[in-house]
Amino acid sequence: MNHTYVIIMAGGIGTRFWPFSRTSYPKQFHDVLGTGRTLLQQTADRFDGICPPENLFIVTSSLYKDLCQKQLPQLSDDQVLCEPIARNTAPCIAYACYKIAQRDPNANIIVAPADHIILKEDDFKRTVRKGLDAVEGNDILVTLGIQPTRPDTGYGYIQYIPESGDDIKKVKTFTEKPHLELARQFVDSGEFVWNAGIFIWNVQSIIKSFENCLPEIAEIFEEGKSVYYTDGEEAFIEKAYSMTGSISIDNGVMEKASNVFVILCDLGWSDLGTWKSLYEVSDKNEEYNVVDGHVLLYDTKNCIIKTPKERLVAINGLDGFIVAEYDNVLMICRKEDEQKVKAFVADAKEKGTEFV
Amino acid sequence: MNHTYVIIMAGGIGTRFWPFSRTSYPKQFHDVLGTGRTLLQQTADRFDGICPPENLFIVTSSLYKDLCQKQLPQLSDDQVLCEPIARNTAPCIAYACYKIAQRDPNANIIVAPADHIILKEDDFKRTVRKGLDAVEGNDILVTLGIQPTRPDTGYGYIQYIPESGDDIKKVKTFTEKPHLELARQFVDSGEFVWNAGIFIWNVQSIIKSFENCLPEIAEIFEEGKSVYYTDGEEAFIEKAYSMTGSISIDNGVMEKASNVFVILCDLGWSDLGTWKSLYEVSDKNEEYNVVDGHVLLYDTKNCIIKTPKERLVAINGLDGFIVAEYDNVLMICRKEDEQKVKAFVADAKEKGTEFV
Repeated sequence: MNHTYVIIMAGGIGTRFWPFSRTSYPKQFHDVLGTGRTLLQQTADRFDGICPPENLFIVTSSLYKDLCQKQLPQLSDDQVLCEPIARNTAPCIAYACYKIAQRDPNANIIVAPADHIILKEDDFKRTVRKGLDAVEGNDILVTLGIQPTRPDTGYGYIQYIPESGDDIKKVKTFTEKPHLELARQFVDSGEFVWNAGIFIWNVQSIIKSFENCLPEIAEIFEEGKSVYYTDGEEAFIEKAYSMTGSISIDNGVMEKASNVFVILCDLGWSDLGTWKSLYEVSDKNEEYNVVDGHVLLYDTKNCIIKTPKERLVAINGLDGFIVAEYDNVLMICRKEDEQKVKAFVADAKEKGTEFV
Repeated sequence: MNHTYVIIMAGGIGTRFWPFSRTSYPKQFHDVLGTGRTLLQQTADRFDGICPPENLFIVTSSLYKDLCQKQLPQLSDDQVLCEPIARNTAPCIAYACYKIAQRDPNANIIVAPADHIILKEDDFKRTVRKGLDAVEGNDILVTLGIQPTRPDTGYGYIQYIPESGDDIKKVKTFTEKPHLELARQFVDSGEFVWNAGIFIWNVQSIIKSFENCLPEIAEIFEEGKSVYYTDGEEAFIEKAYSMTGSISIDNGVMEKASNVFVILCDLGWSDLGTWKSLYEVSDKNEEYNVVDGHVLLYDTKNCIIKTPKERLVAINGLDGFIVAEYDNVLMICRKEDEQKVKAFVADAKEKGTEFV
């Protein structure tokens, strides 16, 4: 029996990536990079050879069950876990881990978001295998820490104890999105890495951590033992989610636990949280434009342009803009102002729910 | 019998107004101002009460015959004159005038482009009636001259002899689009008006002028006498247009004739030749944006935005841009660079004829 499992978290909406990421069709279901595979598919592909296909679990909103099964047709019904409401990552991970524990008490689990990109696939596999070796039979929680290349204020940071190991380091603190000055200090110190939100642990350790750090959540999902993999699971989960609070695994577990380790790595990773992050990781033309569409460009540079294939788009005189159209919404926005996209989405909602 | 006739020239393509103006659906067939009536319809409406409906003639490309009849269903087949190929305004006007002369040798004719706008409808009617009175039985060619409000380099200018009459002045020279310095001198001199391309004459005078100034064209269309209003007209016109050169009425007749007069007027006129001219005549919001579409605007000013009703368009950070989408073509262009639109169209043609 292969004890390696993967949980892909695919329930987010990715508001900042509007108008591509939409309530009915969030970012992870798009072929954002134009490679022919969606982010969810790329994430699943990334674990080929790491875990057997039947050990892959997706946690998503019940709204996206069909999308998941369409994009990953190899999945059985039992492998797509549906959340009735969004409750952040802690309940999501608890649900999947307790369900896996029920089948395999010796499971070693990798948890990964569905909407990140990782350009260095081989390094990723090597890192994950290192993590799996580390957690096998050891009561530790492992996270992946990305060597920072800039003082990004959009990421969480992990401080580690430099002298605590070769490249698996003991974690000292977690810090959510810092302001710029703090981010600069973090990067300069050499003791901080970006929190990639990718976790590795054995199932007994994470269950123990839930029991210690989030006992209410542990209790709720522990109760499901008898119904996981049965017809009663859906009704049980409906009730469980109505009782659980909304909390992230970082806030709820990682920041509180004392047995957290981080593997330092350089994976060509991006959370693709924003248009700018897509711009950063994409190939650029001579004028530093990232183009995915049918375009004529004049005196236009440093732009990211992503428009429907059938539309001809002629642009003259833009510098540093996002031009993005998807499903009847066109956005033209200065790249520097992309933090405003969330506000646009709120305003768009008032114009009609079909636009968000 | 009412001897007043109107010829509306509706054969142009209006390239500078791309992507709205398209080969298959040029500017004059669009409701450019969002009033519920297309430019062609507005032009025809403008002559209500000036000439009886049966005296209105449209000259257009045979490609647009159906469009003309759809937009102006009151027209009989004989009132839509179809040009097999574009040959500029002189052959267009000759065709219509010779055809009218055949029916009514005492016709007084107003010639007007289909794609201009005139905001002061009453002043226009008063001016046109003044012109009709002036040409009745008098061998003169009358043109309308718009009091210039700025040194526009996109218009033709007419110089008149100041002391030659009250507001019907003898014309001294025609000047096509001048460079800026010259345009400034024209406006400062007080002796120049914009050439609106709207003409008034009796049919005998214009025929005499064709005979004097463009004898080849006169000869060609004179020959049609026996076939106008018959089944032979189409074949005759096919042949006539294959023989005639391409020349404007300004170059071919008005600049050469010695009996040209101009009525000075202030009509709220624009040739709507370009996006900027549409911007100038349109209502603006508090941030000086002209908006026809479903938009969310942030930090955006001095723009003209014209997009499909069904599309939500969110724009952040544009100043002085044209954002226009029509029939699968989106253009984003600095207003100051709108002279480049012609080049975009040429490039778009290479991407597919459906885009031009």
